Amino acid sequence: MSKPFAIRPIKQTDFAGWLPLWDGYNTFYGRTGPTALPAEITQTTWRRFFDAYEPVHALVAESDGKLLGLAHYLFHRSTIQLEPSCYLQDLFTDQAARGMGVGRALIEATYHAAAQAGCQRVYWQTHETNATAMQLYDKVAQKSGFVVYRKLLAG
Amino acid sequence: MSKPFAIRPIKQTDFAGWLPLWDGYNTFYGRTGPTALPAEITQTTWRRFFDAYEPVHALVAESDGKLLGLAHYLFHRSTIQLEPSCYLQDLFTDQAARGMGVGRALIEATYHAAAQAGCQRVYWQTHETNATAMQLYDKVAQKSGFVVYRKLLAG
Amino acid sequence: MSKPFAIRPIKQTDFAGWLPLWDGYNTFYGRTGPTALPAEITQTTWRRFFDAYEPVHALVAESDGKLLGLAHYLFHRSTIQLEPSCYLQDLFTDQAARGMGVGRALIEATYHAAAQAGCQRVYWQTHETNATAMQLYDKVAQKSGFVVYRKLLAG
Amino acid sequence: MSKPFAIRPIKQTDFAGWLPLWDGYNTFYGRTGPTALPAEITQTTWRRFFDAYEPVHALVAESDGKLLGLAHYLFHRSTIQLEPSCYLQDLFTDQAARGMGVGRALIEATYHAAAQAGCQRVYWQTHETNATAMQLYDKVAQKSGFVVYRKLLAG
Repeated sequence: MSKPFAIRPIKQTDFAGWLPLWDGYNTFYGRTGPTALPAEITQTTWRRFFDAYEPVHALVAESDGKLLGLAHYLFHRSTIQLEPSCYLQDLFTDQAARGMGVGRALIEATYHAAAQAGCQRVYWQTHETNATAMQLYDKVAQKSGFVVYRKLLAG
Repeated sequence: MSKPFAIRPIKQTDFAGWLPLWDGYNTFYGRTGPTALPAEITQTTWRRFFDAYEPVHALVAESDGKLLGLAHYLFHRSTIQLEPSCYLQDLFTDQAARGMGVGRALIEATYHAAAQAGCQRVYWQTHETNATAMQLYDKVAQKSGFVVYRKLLAG
Repeated sequence: MSKPFAIRPIKQTDFAGWLPLWDGYNTFYGRTGPTALPAEITQTTWRRFFDAYEPVHALVAESDGKLLGLAHYLFHRSTIQLEPSCYLQDLFTDQAARGMGVGRALIEATYHAAAQAGCQRVYWQTHETNATAMQLYDKVAQKSGFVVYRKLLAG
Repeated sequence: MSKPFAIRPIKQTDFAGWLPLWDGYNTFYGRTGPTALPAEITQTTWRRFFDAYEPVHALVAESDGKLLGLAHYLFHRSTIQLEPSCYLQDLFTDQAARGMGVGRALIEATYHAAAQAGCQRVYWQTHETNATAMQLYDKVAQKSGFVVYRKLLAG
């Protein structure tokens, strides 16, 4: 049986609970050890969640005072909409809390927040090999058929 | 033999030359006739190019006073970077000017603008069936392996 | 005896009640008749209240389903703070609702919203001849001693 | 006779020349010793000058490779304009370079940049007791008659 949990916006006092989730998420994407995300970025991103000028937001799943998962989303302009697009950049559930519906609840809370903010769409990216995640994503969204190209610029 | 062309930032006086390119681009993506982009969006996007507060920019390729192509890019926050990401949202070359290197020059000018603006990366999306475009993209960037999910929210 | 009223964020359905207040406010500042604010600006500002990407916000005072006053505030960068500054740009109470504390309540709700948003300060401007307004302002804030210079640029 | 100088946008390599000017400016406003601006703010503001997402900009006056003055301006929304307002937040000339027209040239370069960016107005604040500065300001702009109120919020 699953423990009940609640989704809510992040708070300044969540740092200690949020950091291990953020680290776990970054580790999953290979940002660990020598390629770890610099502490300055973690600090800046954290500050942006609480900066009224920055359209960067975070939700957390909480149960019994413990954080089980995170979702970070941000708004940005689009040339084909009056309203901003909502990009769900990060989604992570603690290993011990998998299978309880935490990820799905975080996605749906992001939908709700984006709709409240007047957005018409939420999008995210996942790696084409991430079959586990896609099992969930195929239930709550559409695979767009679009793939991402990127270019790293010389410093 | 190819005509020479130049890439430069868009100007207020380019509207009449830009609009057919923008319409051609939207038509390519099926936004035509009953599903055409509302004029209000075109007007708003155009204004945003010249709004110092909006991180939305446009480049055009010009030859003999005629516009041959467009690139629209915008900056947005990222949770894993101090610097903004640069999203190349729209790229289009007039049918009559294909094969001259206009698309490639627009992409490279976007790289240059993004680097000048302190960005570490430029990214864009293309449909997985767009083999023609990918011939070029594979030469100037990396296919990231990421695919895009999206959810349209109820109005 | 004063009617009770409540302060709350503006909603999409408030347009008809907000517009006369906005018009009254603009008239007070001489933006009426030939110098009236263009309708396009009113429309754009209204839309910005509900655009998650724009740091422009509105509060209204409501009593018995009728809007009595408005406050518009926005966040912007400052070179001497990590956090954004909060600029209370517009404040207006309907003539018929003066003396009930509506203006003061709107200012205090702006303080609350700014503090929630992590701001350290709220500021606004008033004309040096507006003695009536300053009676209130001197109670709820400090006259900074700073005066405003401006330059209108040639179109 | 005055040395010639040039006004130009700030560059990453200007830090060592800009910092003493910034310190001099802050000292003038009493931000020194125990009330000095935290180094983190200086660092963040410096980074914002080069962040394409932040509408915060800097100009410097240079002569013989030495920086003589600075102007920091930023764009922010306004409820009564489609275009952003341009706020000239900081202006400073090195003591040794006073009387050469550096301040005036920095203001005029800000006008030019704001006009290029589509703005209709530039504004700034000065203390009502700063008679020296106002001698210049009265020549290049209009005293608006508006005074600034502010409220410091409890941390």
